[in-house]
Amino acid sequence: MPRVVKLAVIPGDGIGPEVIAEAEKVLDAATSGSGIQFDKTRFELGAARFLETGDTLTDADLDAIKGNDAILLGAVGGVPGDPRLKDANIERGLLLKLRFELDHYVNLRPSKLYPGAPGPLADPGDIDFVVVREGTEGPYVGNGGSIRRGTPQEVANETSVNTAFGVERVVRYAFDLAERRRKKLTLVHKTNVLVHAGGIWKRVVDEVAKEHPEVAVDYIHVDAATIYLVTNPGRFDVIVTDNLFGDILTDLAGAVTGGIGLAASGNINPDGAFPSMFEPVHGSAPDIAGQQKADPTAAILSISLLLDHLGLRDEADRVTRAVEDDIADRGTASRTTAQIGDAIAARLQA
Amino acid sequence: MPRVVKLAVIPGDGIGPEVIAEAEKVLDAATSGSGIQFDKTRFELGAARFLETGDTLTDADLDAIKGNDAILLGAVGGVPGDPRLKDANIERGLLLKLRFELDHYVNLRPSKLYPGAPGPLADPGDIDFVVVREGTEGPYVGNGGSIRRGTPQEVANETSVNTAFGVERVVRYAFDLAERRRKKLTLVHKTNVLVHAGGIWKRVVDEVAKEHPEVAVDYIHVDAATIYLVTNPGRFDVIVTDNLFGDILTDLAGAVTGGIGLAASGNINPDGAFPSMFEPVHGSAPDIAGQQKADPTAAILSISLLLDHLGLRDEADRVTRAVEDDIADRGTASRTTAQIGDAIAARLQA
Ligand SMILES: CC(C)[C@H](C(=O)O)[C@@H](O)C(=O)O
Ligand SMILES: CC(C)[C@H](C(=O)O)[C@@H](O)C(=O)O
Repeated sequence: MPRVVKLAVIPGDGIGPEVIAEAEKVLDAATSGSGIQFDKTRFELGAARFLETGDTLTDADLDAIKGNDAILLGAVGGVPGDPRLKDANIERGLLLKLRFELDHYVNLRPSKLYPGAPGPLADPGDIDFVVVREGTEGPYVGNGGSIRRGTPQEVANETSVNTAFGVERVVRYAFDLAERRRKKLTLVHKTNVLVHAGGIWKRVVDEVAKEHPEVAVDYIHVDAATIYLVTNPGRFDVIVTDNLFGDILTDLAGAVTGGIGLAASGNINPDGAFPSMFEPVHGSAPDIAGQQKADPTAAILSISLLLDHLGLRDEADRVTRAVEDDIADRGTASRTTAQIGDAIAARLQA
Repeated sequence: MPRVVKLAVIPGDGIGPEVIAEAEKVLDAATSGSGIQFDKTRFELGAARFLETGDTLTDADLDAIKGNDAILLGAVGGVPGDPRLKDANIERGLLLKLRFELDHYVNLRPSKLYPGAPGPLADPGDIDFVVVREGTEGPYVGNGGSIRRGTPQEVANETSVNTAFGVERVVRYAFDLAERRRKKLTLVHKTNVLVHAGGIWKRVVDEVAKEHPEVAVDYIHVDAATIYLVTNPGRFDVIVTDNLFGDILTDLAGAVTGGIGLAASGNINPDGAFPSMFEPVHGSAPDIAGQQKADPTAAILSISLLLDHLGLRDEADRVTRAVEDDIADRGTASRTTAQIGDAIAARLQA
């Protein structure tokens, strides 16, 4: 009896479907003959679906998605400024709703500079770190409002909510990860200004650190962290940080390690109560959609994270190595989205 | 009768006094014979003063500072982790208190890559932009709190407060600046997630943009902005953003334009109701304090911003040019803080 893994596939908008097609190719190539069978269900969600039906993510969608073992997502979001999407917030109503409803409290974002990958830094050094971004709290909770909107007397507030429960579980995950890596953990926040939101992070990290005497712990303000990311990214091993700072740092980290076209992520519910979701860090890039210009590598590396999450370590490693080899051999010749996917899949079949 | 300018000088902690000594040298050199006379008052404020007296910024200090036409500040903050400073927050209690009490709603942070300046980017291109960071609102207001602190049931909140009054005045300043520059303004925020805090910024920028049809306006999410800062910083002219995003972006901007040792800033009250304050973006760096290792260039460029603010355009330009020439001639030989200050002052006397 093959092991059956139920996989929800959400190709999404823009370049999402193109990169997901290649990710699926690689998933098939990596697991063929392994005794694993993926039972896939496609969900057509995103701006296009909203424009057609007015729905962003219905309760029925959510229930159906919850019935899976994992989720593969491309990218969601329409053309910026599309007036028909004025009152829709696909990001909040779909992407963030999935992360929150499925309790994806670990947003895992590895950054590794593969030999041959392009990058903006003159002297990048060895870059290999993971950002453990909190995924269900902080400034992302949607706890805001405004009064007298559109008048000269408007006041608009937005509250970051941080709980010991929420911070502790993600901090514990980060320490466990650091134990399996180079045993270095860096908390990034802005404790000198955000004294309450930052204070709880600092206290929890100091507390959990006591249980991990082998892990070297340091703290850096978020502004300084951006400097290190361009001057000495090799100093990082595991970074743990809140939802918003994690969002900012991982885009920058993606840029310094070959571009956002290579950056993969996992939205993980480590407890297994809900399916985890794997997606490239990049967005839907409507400007280049449908032209086979998108780099599917980030989506393909997300397959590696997915396989690893499912306990398929060997398969995960093979995907990563195939990508690594592909990047090393990339010349300057441009390839289509499908050509890159084919090349990586071919390495797995070889 | 010479014009007398009353200048409050706050050297501060760590490398603050060293870099301020050089900034004062350059100020003297730039204005000698100009008919301007600086009437200086020194304020010994910072961590050292707190440790001695227990005071951070008294009402009397504040009143005395308000009596000046402008302020020159080095850097404040003690040794990180100093237990005696555990309950002091020098940043909030002194630096931010000055910015808030003196209504420094424009935090002006130019980023320019001078020929010869070192930098981490392989191919930086021409970089010349200004970040107009809001200085009195947003997540910096100190509107937070926690319950059940230190227990597993702790909840810690922090609220970003944004008003039409506060956003509009800084946005207007940014548009006026864009008019005098390359006529390009970029709003940076995170409107797709922080819908209320971001919404007010977007609405105000759209509104004020109507009065400036010659200014090309665009919007970028803060995460994407960090990517552009390392892949295409030349795309920016004027960036307008909130207090926290401005903090993050300007450290990164400093890093890509030769390092934080060159980044100057002005905390400006454009209405003139209170004295504006000029300071390097860098901190007090206690680890290298007293060793003549700090680069005083950021403090010296802050003198240029101070002179410009006082309407002394020629003097301001001369300081900038002297710095520019000094940077162009910098070899790899290391110089002391005083040697750099002397060299720049000498160019002004020549
Ligand atoms: C699209 C947006 C809501 C999202 C985020 O801010 O988390 C994206 O930037 C990301 O990093 O996955
Ligand atoms: C010291 C700190 C409070 C300050 C800030 O966050 O504004 C500093 O980082 C800056 O940018 O001037």
